[in-house]
Amino acid sequence: MSDRLILHEYAASGNCYKVRLTAAHVGVALERREYDIMKGETRTPEFLAEVDANGRIPVLQVGERFLPESNAACFYLATDSSLIPSDRFDRADMLRWMFWEQYLHEPNIATLRFWLRSVGLEQLTGLQRDQIAGKRLAGQAALEVMDRHLARRNWFVGDHMTIADICLFAYTHVADEADFDLRLYPEVIRWIERIMSEPRTIPFESELVLALDA
Amino acid sequence: MSDRLILHEYAASGNCYKVRLTAAHVGVALERREYDIMKGETRTPEFLAEVDANGRIPVLQVGERFLPESNAACFYLATDSSLIPSDRFDRADMLRWMFWEQYLHEPNIATLRFWLRSVGLEQLTGLQRDQIAGKRLAGQAALEVMDRHLARRNWFVGDHMTIADICLFAYTHVADEADFDLRLYPEVIRWIERIMSEPRTIPFESELVLALDA
Repeated sequence: MSDRLILHEYAASGNCYKVRLTAAHVGVALERREYDIMKGETRTPEFLAEVDANGRIPVLQVGERFLPESNAACFYLATDSSLIPSDRFDRADMLRWMFWEQYLHEPNIATLRFWLRSVGLEQLTGLQRDQIAGKRLAGQAALEVMDRHLARRNWFVGDHMTIADICLFAYTHVADEADFDLRLYPEVIRWIERIMSEPRTIPFESELVLALDA
Repeated sequence: MSDRLILHEYAASGNCYKVRLTAAHVGVALERREYDIMKGETRTPEFLAEVDANGRIPVLQVGERFLPESNAACFYLATDSSLIPSDRFDRADMLRWMFWEQYLHEPNIATLRFWLRSVGLEQLTGLQRDQIAGKRLAGQAALEVMDRHLARRNWFVGDHMTIADICLFAYTHVADEADFDLRLYPEVIRWIERIMSEPRTIPFESELVLALDA
């Protein structure tokens, strides 16, 4: 890989952690540029003009090109590695779990974590507060789907870790920070432990995680 | 392709149309099985046991295996065709637009279409009604992103149609059914016309579309 790789990120974001974790597992180095989304640093004219016109992170810079969307960045980094299955059905099935993550997991579990831990209940709008109960139920349903799926296998697709596991792991292993009780999902806990015990797995480094651990 | 391909679907769903449209463009035949989601036909014990434990459609059946998530089904069908770029960055960039579609386009434009046209305003819950204004703004923002992107190119990625175009086209070309005014997005209209003029493009066949056209 000859192009210089730069991750434009906010370290406390699980979406950014996915990309760092994939890079660690395939053994490529990423330069890191940190932006504090709570201070609007991804909404500056410079960021919008140079990195992403929509003001979102993470963005993976590959040479002079910019790739938004965490799951797409993971796919780019993992190309030609064992983290993407070579079998045609398995590769599509891996993407199936990654689309599912963006549609039914992240908007519930990651959003509740952001609302409850980063923004704070008192700062939420009325409409956001009204959506908490629905997101709680949808997040629990997502964790139940994962728990059922993992009852019959060690990894989401095939017989080894893929980027579907990495993308789902990022927010699942900190779901307690969104007030989900992971003890209700024992297969998910065993899968989390499996990923954490992989030698190349790196920690989240989230300031949020550190603050809660302290 | 030797495996029998069966699409478990609800024809009025744009997510199901994506899969039919991809199959038409790569020239493979799909058997079709219709389920009326408004009558709970994807929640029967048979459907949950045999097709998808989560009761969602579309599901692409490949031989004896089942693949949920429309965008993953499109990726499966388009494998080794010109609808998926061979260039590593372009392929990831195509997926970037497909993840973006699931996160910022479909939950706003498709959901409003479903709420306003299939469910009906009077039947919505209070919480759903309270979300309409936010989804309207987010849907408009998504259409603006598309319009800006298409001002400089004919297709979302590279210089020809990919499944990113197909996945975005499905709900965009019927966004008027969700009360979005497409005339505000002239580049989007030209791109819609470009896709509709491709010889292999097939019509939606949505009962909903037919009813509105009548």
